[in-house]
Amino acid sequence: MTTAYDYAENNADKFVTQLKEWVTIPSVSTDPAYEASVQQAAQWLAADMQRIGLQNVEVLPTKGHPVVYGEYMGAGDDAPTILVYGHYDVQPAAVSDGWDSDPFQPRLEGDKLYGRGATDDKGQVMIQLKAAEAMLATDNCPVNIKYLIEGEEEIGSPNLTDFVEENKDKLSADICLISDTGIIGIDQPSLTYSLRGLLTMELTVTGPKQDLHSGKGGMIHNPAQAAAEIVTKLHHEDGRISIPHFYDDVLDLTDEERTELAKSDISADEWQNMMGDLPEWGEDGYNKIEKVGARPTLEINGISGGYTGAGFKTVLPAKATVKISCRLVANQDPHKIFEHIEAYIADITPDTVRTKLEKIDFGYPALTPLDHPAVQAANRAYARNWDNAPLMTRGGGSIPIVADFQQMLKMPVVLLGFGLPDAGAHGPNESFSLTMYRKGIATVIAYMEEVSN
Amino acid sequence: MTTAYDYAENNADKFVTQLKEWVTIPSVSTDPAYEASVQQAAQWLAADMQRIGLQNVEVLPTKGHPVVYGEYMGAGDDAPTILVYGHYDVQPAAVSDGWDSDPFQPRLEGDKLYGRGATDDKGQVMIQLKAAEAMLATDNCPVNIKYLIEGEEEIGSPNLTDFVEENKDKLSADICLISDTGIIGIDQPSLTYSLRGLLTMELTVTGPKQDLHSGKGGMIHNPAQAAAEIVTKLHHEDGRISIPHFYDDVLDLTDEERTELAKSDISADEWQNMMGDLPEWGEDGYNKIEKVGARPTLEINGISGGYTGAGFKTVLPAKATVKISCRLVANQDPHKIFEHIEAYIADITPDTVRTKLEKIDFGYPALTPLDHPAVQAANRAYARNWDNAPLMTRGGGSIPIVADFQQMLKMPVVLLGFGLPDAGAHGPNESFSLTMYRKGIATVIAYMEEVSN
Repeated sequence: MTTAYDYAENNADKFVTQLKEWVTIPSVSTDPAYEASVQQAAQWLAADMQRIGLQNVEVLPTKGHPVVYGEYMGAGDDAPTILVYGHYDVQPAAVSDGWDSDPFQPRLEGDKLYGRGATDDKGQVMIQLKAAEAMLATDNCPVNIKYLIEGEEEIGSPNLTDFVEENKDKLSADICLISDTGIIGIDQPSLTYSLRGLLTMELTVTGPKQDLHSGKGGMIHNPAQAAAEIVTKLHHEDGRISIPHFYDDVLDLTDEERTELAKSDISADEWQNMMGDLPEWGEDGYNKIEKVGARPTLEINGISGGYTGAGFKTVLPAKATVKISCRLVANQDPHKIFEHIEAYIADITPDTVRTKLEKIDFGYPALTPLDHPAVQAANRAYARNWDNAPLMTRGGGSIPIVADFQQMLKMPVVLLGFGLPDAGAHGPNESFSLTMYRKGIATVIAYMEEVSN
Repeated sequence: MTTAYDYAENNADKFVTQLKEWVTIPSVSTDPAYEASVQQAAQWLAADMQRIGLQNVEVLPTKGHPVVYGEYMGAGDDAPTILVYGHYDVQPAAVSDGWDSDPFQPRLEGDKLYGRGATDDKGQVMIQLKAAEAMLATDNCPVNIKYLIEGEEEIGSPNLTDFVEENKDKLSADICLISDTGIIGIDQPSLTYSLRGLLTMELTVTGPKQDLHSGKGGMIHNPAQAAAEIVTKLHHEDGRISIPHFYDDVLDLTDEERTELAKSDISADEWQNMMGDLPEWGEDGYNKIEKVGARPTLEINGISGGYTGAGFKTVLPAKATVKISCRLVANQDPHKIFEHIEAYIADITPDTVRTKLEKIDFGYPALTPLDHPAVQAANRAYARNWDNAPLMTRGGGSIPIVADFQQMLKMPVVLLGFGLPDAGAHGPNESFSLTMYRKGIATVIAYMEEVSN
């Protein structure tokens, strides 16, 4: 009897050919010029879903690019239902960005398939779908699965929240499974059980009615200087954020988590690659992975005021602008945090300038506790396919839709990521490891088995 | 017998026609496309110098645009010699900048002649030349006069220092007279006896080797935040500059000066126009004109780091750049001040980022004491042509060449300025008051008389 694992191994070459075909379609969601290709990529996906035997396959319209849906409900009412989320849209890419070959003419070299979307997220969606194909073809799928593959992830999923809200029943499930994140290394699996939320803001500091000649300087509070003073007051000297109530709702780390997280701390090599010889910064009492994964931040993402071109202009600027973002952790609420920051900035604004803080965007933090059965099943699924048990880790970044799924659909989210650190998602020469493709499929099959036990 | 004053009044219309003709030549020094016009404006000036009877008129080459020289040495060895400095180049101007008419087709309306360079500085050079014409035509010039009119003032006089250095003997004189500044109002003359020096710098703060995703935030000292922290530490909270030794060489104001300066303090209206309802800032114990004219500053002219375009990008920037300038007062030395700032910034730079401070440009402060005979002569010359005695004031801006003349040619510099506050120098619809033109000529004639007594 052929197992799902055998089927997947026997069809590995076909799966690569199929992924290459899909990557060839430049489904760049941000650029209207690629509108037809985005549609084509959605249709390709729907056709593949039908080919492997999913039911109720639909390309569902949104206000933007469509959502592709398909399901297998043959495991019966007693089996758990898994909602698989992914996306078929990709970041822009052009040879002129530094690619060694056409990003939409996928190229195989060694273990790598090079092409835009190879890892993010077409390759990982294919891991999910090809696992399903293997299970269905061998009549061996122990769970019900619903697939929700969107076409706007790379532009911030502007229409997905509404779609989920309007399709709550259709999407109801026990666990949400997402393959759109990374793994520590090809020999060391990892499982991200927490993502930070995000709050983005723009602070404007204004003074003179218009830019002045700096010969007027000495009697006027320079808005660029005032902006710097305000920015400085957002942190204590020791790296802690100084905004009252900022940390009020932060969940403390358990001892078990700290022990686990220590295993996936940022390595000396990774630090050296990013920072050279510069030492670490930030809150006392936390190691790097904890600072990045378990503690909130307030970051200056952009600052500008006055003349910033080549050469010099002795201007006393009328205003300065600061782009500020917070990465938030469970259980911080971005709206409450915004109110705290807004109140504090109003409080510290001197009467010599005016300030305005605008909320740009937000996303909730997401956390599925380490000891949750859905996480433990993933742990076992990885362990079955690797020599090393997976490291349980936290991500410093944000996937706002993860928290939306948690909150709107009331289900735990498990991030079954297979992107290697050198995959180059969003950059030139994005690649996907064929080893990860094969191991990923086996891990997804194992996950479905583990979660159904 | 016709006096020089009579001659000037009788020829007022001709003088306006001549100025219009000169303004018609678009001598924009910064733009190579106007190279021929710059040459033409120099030739026009040389021709006028010859027409009015100056000797040794020359258009002298520099590495850039030429200097126009002419002299009258007929007053004899016992009479004082005056070096008159001005410039024939102008700022760029186009109707699209907001002009109501072609900036190089001068237009008369009421008391105003509109055109680029009308006040800055062609009109004021013509005040000097037409005063000379009146004195020479009536055989009544009590002083020797040398004219040094350059063509690169609007681009920072890059070649003038060398020219002056190489022509020290040719330019030797007792007093340098510059008409390239302003006057408080049409009914209230003023005399600027001090200008601030300038030191421009660029501070670079670097951290990560390249821009990072802000999901890495929490363990890394953000260079934009570090830049803000460093900028903040350059001032005490009370507005004083915190750099050690910064104020060491600052000359204190005398009681007499403070009494004089109080008369030309920034008016409530002028403040309201610039700042609306925002209150004053800066060092305690000084009024506005003192802060601007007699106290040094450290100003942020530009700050940039990270993503500063529309929308948001959650980047943790690799570097931030701050353009900083100091306005300096007598007897501060820009090079010593730079060393103090450089040492202080090195001292306050935390080990989590790197900083580099680069000197861009510098100019010495200039001061001719209130009680200097050359200033007192100017005081009397204004008083003879206005109902009100001139206000003795200090300028917050910088004309680096003034200090160069003082230092290289060892002579006092007197700023006999006739630009009205609404003249719009450097802006659209620059204008020159015909009243100021006439009164300016009479004042220059009076000055030559007063200084020869």
